[in-house]
Amino acid sequence: MAGYKLSETELQQALNSLPGWQIKEGKLYKEYKFNSFATALGWMVTVGVHAEIMEHHPEWFNVYSTVWVNLVTHDNGNAISNLDIELAKKMEEIYSS
Amino acid sequence: MAGYKLSETELQQALNSLPGWQIKEGKLYKEYKFNSFATALGWMVTVGVHAEIMEHHPEWFNVYSTVWVNLVTHDNGNAISNLDIELAKKMEEIYSS
Repeated sequence: MAGYKLSETELQQALNSLPGWQIKEGKLYKEYKFNSFATALGWMVTVGVHAEIMEHHPEWFNVYSTVWVNLVTHDNGNAISNLDIELAKKMEEIYSS
Repeated sequence: MAGYKLSETELQQALNSLPGWQIKEGKLYKEYKFNSFATALGWMVTVGVHAEIMEHHPEWFNVYSTVWVNLVTHDNGNAISNLDIELAKKMEEIYSS
């Protein structure tokens, strides 16, 4: 899925509704902290199911109870797209549930 | 779990039985390729269950169908221990099953 590249304004608006997310090296980035490895991995699995449904996947790094996430749309010239925002929102929703 | 630090000889012997694994920046490293994101994540979950049982966890980075793994024992002065070898062997076993 390619999505569409967000304008600077659209990106800023989206970031306002995504606490803890920032732009880092051209990617949408957040560090997620959990209270255990099992909780972190469980969150990754639930997010993973949604990533499969969306056909849009994260880049993520896990060490014990921390997951560092980078979202970018490779099919779209490595820009941040609406799909990255959608996936970030889904991650937030699952994290707070 | 702290495990025990491996001697140079023990480490070399262990590496001989771990195809594709190498020492990289003081950690036991391997790049795993899968045929899909779902297969990669499924492998991570199965490995994760064993990591919990062992009380010893990997550092891993996933992008779509690739997982880069680093194993090191933080409780043991950031050295490679018998626990890292044990976890690597478990990863191989699950990967080839």
